[in-house]
Amino acid sequence: MDLDDIIHSLKNFEGVTRKRPIKNIVSILNDAYNVSGNTYLGYGDDASAIRIGDGKLLLLAADGIWGRLMDADPYWAGYCSVLVNVNDIAAMGGKPVGMVNVLSINSSETCYSVMEGIKDGADKFGVPMVGGHVHPDTPYDALDVSIAGIASEDAIITSCDARPGDRVIVGIDLDGRPHPSFPLNWDTTTHKSPEDVQAQIDIMAELAERHLVTAGKDISNPGTLGTLGMLLEASNVGARIEMESIPRNRSVDWDSWLKMYPGSGFVLTTAPENVNECVELLESVGITASDAGEIIADQRLYLRVDDDEGVLFDLKSEIITGVTEEKL
Amino acid sequence: MDLDDIIHSLKNFEGVTRKRPIKNIVSILNDAYNVSGNTYLGYGDDASAIRIGDGKLLLLAADGIWGRLMDADPYWAGYCSVLVNVNDIAAMGGKPVGMVNVLSINSSETCYSVMEGIKDGADKFGVPMVGGHVHPDTPYDALDVSIAGIASEDAIITSCDARPGDRVIVGIDLDGRPHPSFPLNWDTTTHKSPEDVQAQIDIMAELAERHLVTAGKDISNPGTLGTLGMLLEASNVGARIEMESIPRNRSVDWDSWLKMYPGSGFVLTTAPENVNECVELLESVGITASDAGEIIADQRLYLRVDDDEGVLFDLKSEIITGVTEEKL
Repeated sequence: MDLDDIIHSLKNFEGVTRKRPIKNIVSILNDAYNVSGNTYLGYGDDASAIRIGDGKLLLLAADGIWGRLMDADPYWAGYCSVLVNVNDIAAMGGKPVGMVNVLSINSSETCYSVMEGIKDGADKFGVPMVGGHVHPDTPYDALDVSIAGIASEDAIITSCDARPGDRVIVGIDLDGRPHPSFPLNWDTTTHKSPEDVQAQIDIMAELAERHLVTAGKDISNPGTLGTLGMLLEASNVGARIEMESIPRNRSVDWDSWLKMYPGSGFVLTTAPENVNECVELLESVGITASDAGEIIADQRLYLRVDDDEGVLFDLKSEIITGVTEEKL
Repeated sequence: MDLDDIIHSLKNFEGVTRKRPIKNIVSILNDAYNVSGNTYLGYGDDASAIRIGDGKLLLLAADGIWGRLMDADPYWAGYCSVLVNVNDIAAMGGKPVGMVNVLSINSSETCYSVMEGIKDGADKFGVPMVGGHVHPDTPYDALDVSIAGIASEDAIITSCDARPGDRVIVGIDLDGRPHPSFPLNWDTTTHKSPEDVQAQIDIMAELAERHLVTAGKDISNPGTLGTLGMLLEASNVGARIEMESIPRNRSVDWDSWLKMYPGSGFVLTTAPENVNECVELLESVGITASDAGEIIADQRLYLRVDDDEGVLFDLKSEIITGVTEEKL
């Protein structure tokens, strides 16, 4: 697969293009994100953050489970609703505290499987599902989960603070397998103990407390480079990435790998002098990490494969989410 | 309308009967509500509560907006998604901190109206909508909103602490009108200033801090007596209620009134010596309140109209949600 093919494939990947309507929606909400004056981070990050006193931040995130995931494998949908939310809090350097869900039920069999998945996810990640709301009579099955976490204002990881000169670290747990029903879900957690899984969540808070990273995001539906693109967009910077430096399980080809949603995977930026410590910490919990490139002022994501280089995203003319993130 | 007709009508009211599947769902989740050991209140209350240190509780609630509300009036659906969530936190004596949403969009026109409603709701109630998730391509329109709040462990209002001998106070803002699209929505907020609306939210925290109430809930889809029934179920008690003592706007007949979802309405229980102070505080912010009956050990809700008395809910043999609430 040559560079042009990879770029074309990633640019048109549904995991990336589905993000575009976000900008329009956010524009309608306008200043609703800060009506109380306590908001620290509004739209545009993995979780939002609100000051609650004593230097503490309440983190809030919500994720809906893609309908086709619910239809194809409701147990996995329930399990993933926990995983994706916990990762949103971890990516901010926060501690997940609890979750609530809204479940819309058409089939009670589906409902049962979804709840089983949620229960197992809560056990695995150690985050309680404390309540929610049920629509017992919808013409469709759907699941939305929200999570709250706590972080400190002086040790939060945002998506908007990457600076030119930073190094880009990609960390992915390579000990996994594509999920049988969803070849782009890189399942790294179902075969691991709760202790091992939770250690991977906790390491992000450790990175935050040690002030080792300048920005970070968990790798989600847009895949490794789509997620990095969102981070670059939020930080108003670009990057130059060496594809072969991204950690990969060699059983998966590059095109699929770059679109994977890993159970545990993060893109981080850090000052050059902190690269080694970041990599060591991530690898201490089984997340394979490496320096995959640099942050640049030019707002483009350049991808290099062998001796070829091309532009994956030109963030001056294209948008991924189009949402500007700012700290308040 | 005689007593039997009212009882039959309320028992079969969809706002009440839709609550029944909750028990089955909660039973699947089993102990997922306390996997971290920090949960203070799990399922069964307006919001769940989790200890976050220093005697503080994080409150979390989620509400989905009924599909028919989205279809009929998406602006009002968006506005109500804020109102119902804020009331859930208020009913616990908490301070609402922020909200997130998951929006599933089929029609972009609907989406625009929903977001306008959310924005106006956030402005009115002073609670920021800080983020969320969008499904841009669902075959239906749906909106789920979650809210986080903060309360103190020593001043939280639960649904499970009503005691025999307590008085039942019903407080409803009578300055409203049935919503044009939804005759069972008693709209008390759109014509009021943010200051007046927020004063009604804040008064619940004041009641909590003064330790004036033993239990409380905001009146929601099940209406005044359906909501009281849920409180009785959570507290394992019954009540004897005098219908004519429930505050009512006389432009609405009793059957409709008792099914109304008011913009601001609460059922509270209190020791007899605190009734007057509760009523005064509620009325100081425009919520008409009165002593409507007493809490009894017999787990039935007896309704008295004129000289007739009947059983509306027999909670030993029937369930509303069937969820047992307990403090951990």
